[in-house]
Amino acid sequence: MKIGSLLFEKLDQIDMTGPFEVLSRLPNAEHRLYGLTADPVRDIMGLRFSPDATIHDAPQLDVLHIPGGPGQEALMDNEALHEWLRAQASGATKVFSVCTGALILGGAGLLRGRHATTHWASHALLPLFGATAVDKRVVEDGKFIFAAGVTAGIDGALTLAADLCGPDVAQRIQLEIAYAPEPPFHSGTPESAPPAVLAAARAAAAELLARRQATAKRFAERFGIAFGTVE
Amino acid sequence: MKIGSLLFEKLDQIDMTGPFEVLSRLPNAEHRLYGLTADPVRDIMGLRFSPDATIHDAPQLDVLHIPGGPGQEALMDNEALHEWLRAQASGATKVFSVCTGALILGGAGLLRGRHATTHWASHALLPLFGATAVDKRVVEDGKFIFAAGVTAGIDGALTLAADLCGPDVAQRIQLEIAYAPEPPFHSGTPESAPPAVLAAARAAAAELLARRQATAKRFAERFGIAFGTVE
Repeated sequence: MKIGSLLFEKLDQIDMTGPFEVLSRLPNAEHRLYGLTADPVRDIMGLRFSPDATIHDAPQLDVLHIPGGPGQEALMDNEALHEWLRAQASGATKVFSVCTGALILGGAGLLRGRHATTHWASHALLPLFGATAVDKRVVEDGKFIFAAGVTAGIDGALTLAADLCGPDVAQRIQLEIAYAPEPPFHSGTPESAPPAVLAAARAAAAELLARRQATAKRFAERFGIAFGTVE
Repeated sequence: MKIGSLLFEKLDQIDMTGPFEVLSRLPNAEHRLYGLTADPVRDIMGLRFSPDATIHDAPQLDVLHIPGGPGQEALMDNEALHEWLRAQASGATKVFSVCTGALILGGAGLLRGRHATTHWASHALLPLFGATAVDKRVVEDGKFIFAAGVTAGIDGALTLAADLCGPDVAQRIQLEIAYAPEPPFHSGTPESAPPAVLAAARAAAAELLARRQATAKRFAERFGIAFGTVE
């Protein structure tokens, strides 16, 4: 089974490393990283990764994994990437986005008519790409599976592992990686976070969100999707 | 604030990338990776990382972070590393191990007289290094903080973030990384996993555990710690 993660500058690294931790352990799986070029990239906080190969040298993948992160914005008009994503998605058994990786799929037109999710801060943008936004941590729609923000990729990958190899395999991986989480606070969603914490996080993300909104509106116009006010 | 993770061949990558996701977001923090040499390493499933510098070029760290993984065994008799760990631990504000990173600290004599935890499969070895084994996901003892297996490093890092910068900072990071986990199964501990899943995981880990047991007994003898039967 060939599993491939898209690697790009300024991704959020755990969108990739969380699923890698799970999916690389599937029986007979080979999990590789595919870059737009052969150059190493840095995640948004500076962690370096080197692609195993470029997307142009990738075989048809069984699992196409698209992480997100602030660097997603720079990929939204990359037509060569869009063509690659559409071709891979067509032949893949599963297409799995994490966080704002969903927006990258949206730019390629792959969200149209699908139920999907993404990071809470960008959730309201999904309809502009033709998707129905679902407020769940993991959303499955046919061969597509969408994990919400960042660490939701671990939950999504375990769901995907069970889809592909059955619950026993997924549960064994969960046991080996001791995934019985105990967050010391209850602040992982806008609904549970203290109001001041939410306000600070929204303020820090405002500039990036404004750019993502403008991009999403362009795609809505291109796709002929009506939109009103976007929050 | 200088945060440093030890990088070594055959670590378990999310022992490092989970805490990196949290700790690199602390205010005024610089999170770097320190290798035994300048060469890139591969995690147990093949993910590549390059050190920012070698341990010999590391400054005194404020937070010393030690991930685990099967490659830990090869470090247990590395006296140069032990000296570095003892010197760093002496000057650091916090010493944070994840998973079998605790055994690396044990080899350096840094577990003696401390309460600690580690991956469930190696938990019974902690007393051979002079520690009191505590069956909790995150254990704090003075400046030391220990996370249990693999993904527990995320919980431990959020606890550490709150220790260093207060609960508001930890909660904001938790919100940004959308850490409101929803594992699709309840199989993350030996107690919760189905018996057949636990048996398969134990069988797969048996050979490595036998080597870790033999090593731990050597250290118990060296440290003059009495031991009976070790499971």
